[in-house]
Amino acid sequence: MPLMSKVASSISEAMSIKFNNIVYELKRQGKKVITLSLGEAFFDIPLFPMNDLPYPDIYHYSHSRGLPELREKLSEYFHKQFEVDFDPTKEILVTAGSKIAIHMAFMGMLDPGDEVLIHEPAWVSYSEQIKLCYGKPLGVPYFETVFEFEKYISNRTKAIVINNPHNPTGKVYSIDELNKILELGKKYNLWLLSDEAYSDFLIDNSFVSLGALEKPFSRVVIFNSISKNYGISGWRLGYIIGNSDFINTVSKVNQHLITCPATILEYYVSKHFYRILEITFPQIQNLLKARKQIGSFMESIGLKFLPGEATFYFFVAIIPSKLTSEEFCERLLREEYVSVVPGIGYGASCDKFVRVSFGTESMDDIEFALKKVKELIRATS
Amino acid sequence: MPLMSKVASSISEAMSIKFNNIVYELKRQGKKVITLSLGEAFFDIPLFPMNDLPYPDIYHYSHSRGLPELREKLSEYFHKQFEVDFDPTKEILVTAGSKIAIHMAFMGMLDPGDEVLIHEPAWVSYSEQIKLCYGKPLGVPYFETVFEFEKYISNRTKAIVINNPHNPTGKVYSIDELNKILELGKKYNLWLLSDEAYSDFLIDNSFVSLGALEKPFSRVVIFNSISKNYGISGWRLGYIIGNSDFINTVSKVNQHLITCPATILEYYVSKHFYRILEITFPQIQNLLKARKQIGSFMESIGLKFLPGEATFYFFVAIIPSKLTSEEFCERLLREEYVSVVPGIGYGASCDKFVRVSFGTESMDDIEFALKKVKELIRATS
Repeated sequence: MPLMSKVASSISEAMSIKFNNIVYELKRQGKKVITLSLGEAFFDIPLFPMNDLPYPDIYHYSHSRGLPELREKLSEYFHKQFEVDFDPTKEILVTAGSKIAIHMAFMGMLDPGDEVLIHEPAWVSYSEQIKLCYGKPLGVPYFETVFEFEKYISNRTKAIVINNPHNPTGKVYSIDELNKILELGKKYNLWLLSDEAYSDFLIDNSFVSLGALEKPFSRVVIFNSISKNYGISGWRLGYIIGNSDFINTVSKVNQHLITCPATILEYYVSKHFYRILEITFPQIQNLLKARKQIGSFMESIGLKFLPGEATFYFFVAIIPSKLTSEEFCERLLREEYVSVVPGIGYGASCDKFVRVSFGTESMDDIEFALKKVKELIRATS
Repeated sequence: MPLMSKVASSISEAMSIKFNNIVYELKRQGKKVITLSLGEAFFDIPLFPMNDLPYPDIYHYSHSRGLPELREKLSEYFHKQFEVDFDPTKEILVTAGSKIAIHMAFMGMLDPGDEVLIHEPAWVSYSEQIKLCYGKPLGVPYFETVFEFEKYISNRTKAIVINNPHNPTGKVYSIDELNKILELGKKYNLWLLSDEAYSDFLIDNSFVSLGALEKPFSRVVIFNSISKNYGISGWRLGYIIGNSDFINTVSKVNQHLITCPATILEYYVSKHFYRILEITFPQIQNLLKARKQIGSFMESIGLKFLPGEATFYFFVAIIPSKLTSEEFCERLLREEYVSVVPGIGYGASCDKFVRVSFGTESMDDIEFALKKVKELIRATS
């Protein structure tokens, strides 16, 4: 057999997916697993009929930038919801998930050796996507704030990525922090990528899109996800918003990688856009109430976690356990049938944490599972 | 604004998509365009209900290698239909279209500077995907056969790609040709990629999958497309079959780029797998009868094309027109509202051709459009 590429051989499996694949296999064997490892929340959403969608267009390719009606809906929504204005014909590309959107943006901006600053704990795929583009991810440790970012910038730095609201801490970046990032972008001529896939997972109005602070779009690039905010993560609909020249470049890449997202689902979401939002909104609010309850519960049993108020994630410390985060999660899953994701997947500074995602299980199961986390910390200290 | 990457700036827009986007825009302006530029055929396929699919699983991520039931169906189908055997748990990855599957395979095998032989006319995305991996596409001109491939092989050659049945000529590779490719693969230790997205667009049994000639899978990698063969190209379901180590590597890449294809569509296709095949089979047969008729018509008006008997494409010569293929297609579209794809998109040796795709229009419109092609050749000679 010929050799595989060095770059693909060198990247890590996505920690979250690795553990979730084990969960799928345990479940197929009939095991009950309390699953706190998924990158999604489960909502109760009806399925509307599809036979009133435009036939036969549902079967064919759509415009390679995404269905025009859907782009118009998104433009309208961003204007109202986030005070972000973009031209739906030129400044957005809808594709098969925000994951591939982010990857294609890296392809559109990175030359080999270019560095990208990512704020740890950082979503598992940023670093591997950057490596696949022959760029160099530079993790800023979790204990640093954006006000310390400058010392990590070199003459090879090409971009800064933030995730706002933040997976896995739930942190929402303040206006001061966002302005600091914009300032650094201008000073060092950097691309500024803001992954806002959890923009609707908030209990208040504290979230500000980075896209609201730069008009017109120039160095700021926004990513968001229809599938995530609508509780339909398996439908793979995400998008990228930015200045038209950059979107043109990414569109070329998209034409050779994706063509378009699943057309029938574009029509469906376009048609039921506000209706699904209405259905998911109260459920998101309940999820965020549950967040408070779970936070209090963790405090009551002595589990510590990084501060944050949005999303359905907690980044929980496993100190003083002597296990690495991967060993910890393996044991928790194999012995207690509780799945969480190892912190090491989120950066070198994060091996004493695990990610807990609470969007898919009952409160009883979550509390039971968190006790198991606490017990395993104690047993391995 | 910071710079874009050299690699993304250097790639070309996909010729087919570029022209089809113009078609979408003309149609939105109310123009009637005879569209012979699409990479898809239109079939008459009912839409079955979706509300009997497993709820709420349809909304969530599936296994990142694709829904297990769907992989099992495909394994069963390949065994019966193509005498290709693979393990559905280890030797296949189902993802969001065969396009991204091919790209991820290149990522899995190419180091910067590695060369890949592609046989012109070659599908528009192979060369650009290879460039995006910092590899070097080496086009073998259309007038060479696989028996001349050896002289194009260097010590940097890492892979050969064939498209069988072939877009855009409709050629089906003979067993002798396939054996020659296997021989070269062994002699020079190359990956052998066979893109078989049109495997069902045949009127007879002349098609042999490259995967039937190497058991077990080692250097051979097969790509195929559920969406294409089922007339549901907008649903973006494709897959890659190969040896398990290679599929493991590509799966890692897939985890960071795609996660999984649209889950609801995986369930749908898995459930109605044979039913849709039954519906499309006679329509494919009709399409291939139309192919013969169109071939005869072109001969009768003096249009020449490269030989082939499968698929819904013709690669038609525009000699002795003095226009480049791109100029030719622009004029044909803007003046006659007939869209075909410039040959230059299929390789440097192909600028005196255009691709005609006849899967979406009536015979009358196709014949009308082909006369316009002939007239424009005459007018520009």
